[in-house]
Amino acid sequence: MNVGDRVRVERDAVTHEGVLLPSSTDEELVVKLDGGYNVGLDRDRASVEVVEQDVHTVGESDSNGEDSSTVSFDESLPTIALVSTGGTIASTVDYRTGAVTAQFDAEDVLRAVPDLAGRANYRGRVVANILSENMDASIWQDLAEAVHEEIEKGADGVVVMHGTDTMQYTASALALMLETPVPVVFTGSQRSADRPSSDNVMNAVCAVEAAKADCAEVLVCMHATGSDDECALHRGTRVRKSHTSARSAFETVGAPPLGVVDYDAVTGDTAGGSVGSTDAVSFRGEYRERGECELAVAPELNERVELLKFHPGMDASRLDALADADGLVIEGTGLGHVHTDLIPRLAEFVDDGMVIAMSSACIEGRVCDRVYDTGRDLLDAGVIEAEDTLPGTAYVKLQWLLANHDDPATAMGERLAGEATDRSTPWQP
Amino acid sequence: MNVGDRVRVERDAVTHEGVLLPSSTDEELVVKLDGGYNVGLDRDRASVEVVEQDVHTVGESDSNGEDSSTVSFDESLPTIALVSTGGTIASTVDYRTGAVTAQFDAEDVLRAVPDLAGRANYRGRVVANILSENMDASIWQDLAEAVHEEIEKGADGVVVMHGTDTMQYTASALALMLETPVPVVFTGSQRSADRPSSDNVMNAVCAVEAAKADCAEVLVCMHATGSDDECALHRGTRVRKSHTSARSAFETVGAPPLGVVDYDAVTGDTAGGSVGSTDAVSFRGEYRERGECELAVAPELNERVELLKFHPGMDASRLDALADADGLVIEGTGLGHVHTDLIPRLAEFVDDGMVIAMSSACIEGRVCDRVYDTGRDLLDAGVIEAEDTLPGTAYVKLQWLLANHDDPATAMGERLAGEATDRSTPWQP
Repeated sequence: MNVGDRVRVERDAVTHEGVLLPSSTDEELVVKLDGGYNVGLDRDRASVEVVEQDVHTVGESDSNGEDSSTVSFDESLPTIALVSTGGTIASTVDYRTGAVTAQFDAEDVLRAVPDLAGRANYRGRVVANILSENMDASIWQDLAEAVHEEIEKGADGVVVMHGTDTMQYTASALALMLETPVPVVFTGSQRSADRPSSDNVMNAVCAVEAAKADCAEVLVCMHATGSDDECALHRGTRVRKSHTSARSAFETVGAPPLGVVDYDAVTGDTAGGSVGSTDAVSFRGEYRERGECELAVAPELNERVELLKFHPGMDASRLDALADADGLVIEGTGLGHVHTDLIPRLAEFVDDGMVIAMSSACIEGRVCDRVYDTGRDLLDAGVIEAEDTLPGTAYVKLQWLLANHDDPATAMGERLAGEATDRSTPWQP
Repeated sequence: MNVGDRVRVERDAVTHEGVLLPSSTDEELVVKLDGGYNVGLDRDRASVEVVEQDVHTVGESDSNGEDSSTVSFDESLPTIALVSTGGTIASTVDYRTGAVTAQFDAEDVLRAVPDLAGRANYRGRVVANILSENMDASIWQDLAEAVHEEIEKGADGVVVMHGTDTMQYTASALALMLETPVPVVFTGSQRSADRPSSDNVMNAVCAVEAAKADCAEVLVCMHATGSDDECALHRGTRVRKSHTSARSAFETVGAPPLGVVDYDAVTGDTAGGSVGSTDAVSFRGEYRERGECELAVAPELNERVELLKFHPGMDASRLDALADADGLVIEGTGLGHVHTDLIPRLAEFVDDGMVIAMSSACIEGRVCDRVYDTGRDLLDAGVIEAEDTLPGTAYVKLQWLLANHDDPATAMGERLAGEATDRSTPWQP
């Protein structure tokens, strides 16, 4: 019995049939069922029978007998571009080939996640194959151009597969770089495909449904709860990864998510549906609708920007390492503060042309530097309040503004892509 | 009509009497009622009559006619030391004298917060008078020694008044420095006393009640909700300020707060009560009980420690500014990651004797560097996982260990003051 074999496992009088996956522990068998779900079974208590050796791909062993080597184009379905940058979700494809691969076409996609079949015509594209902690500005730019090209070629929506660690930075970058008339939906996976609790199938399916829907913004689609009931759709500039390992790790800061994908409704209606017709995807509040704007891309960035988290006891000499930057976002304390001793140096930086913006380590709430003396001194020094923009989003915004705007300091206080809001909730007066 | 006058204000057929406070806007009158609460009244719609000019202090104008210039010692009550470091809550005292003052005795306390009367005998002490963004390690040390001295002199509990911005760092420092047989309760204020929504009275009263209770740990006592119903008691090493301005800005990360002070029960029983007898304070889970340990203080710190937040696109040369540090805490992404390119430099630092610990910017969840290649490379480089210790707490812990422990690298992975937990909730498998 080897990984890749089709097996029938009986435990506690229940029989499961599917493909044996690699398991992270010897005590557990992990089987990918034909529906795309993985199930973990206690090895000691299960009896296993090999049905077929070395099946390799789920797609090829589908009981419906379809030959997945040819995926036909269905004119009644929308076309979704699947753009991969790597991360845990993309490893769905990798493990089966046994190696890292840049091959990523419609066949690969359907082999990896059979549940995607019948929902759309797919075009696959690999921009990078990295863990997202290794993401950098040049890949953000390549990605924006790739997404732009896919939309230009006629994609009705784009799904970007991305590692979860820095997804919020990349989503913010694309939200600033792209004017898009179709949805651009990031998704990823907190648990790899070899774990029974993997979230990759549901996240990918919900992301495709969101990419077919009406909100033409850059969104992040991830599990909304610990159950397999719904995915949340977060505005790319307002989202953060708030848990290291939970499947529902992502949250929209200061508000409920912009939208929801009901997974039960999605899986009850696998027959497809035309663009924007799905009832499984719903939105609250205002958003940019499909077709509302013309497609455009402005991928330039000024990478000479840094993000600095202030903490008590910070060595003032650490500012010296930032003296050559064109921009600096500070993650300050409370309403947006740093030690008073640092302010004269920041004032010098501003005098020398650096744009400095203040965000808060609190995460919830907004910067207001008019309340306390420290804040007023910071404003006098020329530091700009980032309102309730998240520190990471403010950092990406400043990179983008310094490359695309005549007056980046002024524009830093303006709202470009939903990165700041009028009111931070929950607000408790 | 001037600030400090005793006034009677009628609006919408309701009459309020109290002392006129400074207001941050011309459109509003703010009146401190005799019970200690402030009320804000629309100036246009209110009629005001001055009852007595220049009353100055609420204590002196109390309707019970007590002469607050002499506060007598009541042997039936516990003794609470009130130690002030500054911040918004301490400005209660300042505004009435019209100047910053280091005078801070029992009289000052009762003038500032008349509701404290009858709950304890008070000893006042000023360690600093600063906004907490200006807090540094030397004040942490002074504070630990002052608290130690107050307990040695017989205080049954200590309340530390502190600015909210960096309270979590100072509370962590004291939790590590002090072995205390009595409660040490930090409190502060998110809204200054001249604002109708000020939280200073309730937070101070609840902190005193917590200092009389049974949990002999370093706690943070702040509003639990947006209402004036209860204060939460957070373990000092597990708390963070998570909202810039809300009164319930503080949260215990990964779990409910350790304790609760029921403000209704507290205000319904102002007659005092002996040490540990209050029903208004309750705890969940395990804690160190009053009298369980001997008093001891170890205030030494190694200040050559820095906290670095990693972000994509971080200039690798920023590590150069940290080469001279003895310790470094990284706030990494996800399970505890940085860009792979930074790892060789971190390995050099470790080889040169630096202690490096990894925490996560996610805040919820725990670091686990055994899942992905990047994490394993970090462990190979000698980086220590900080479990679910908060980045700021890990930073303080490393300062303390480098000055107090023979093997700080090993001790960094051990638990000293509740800073890490066995399980992070909410955990969604």
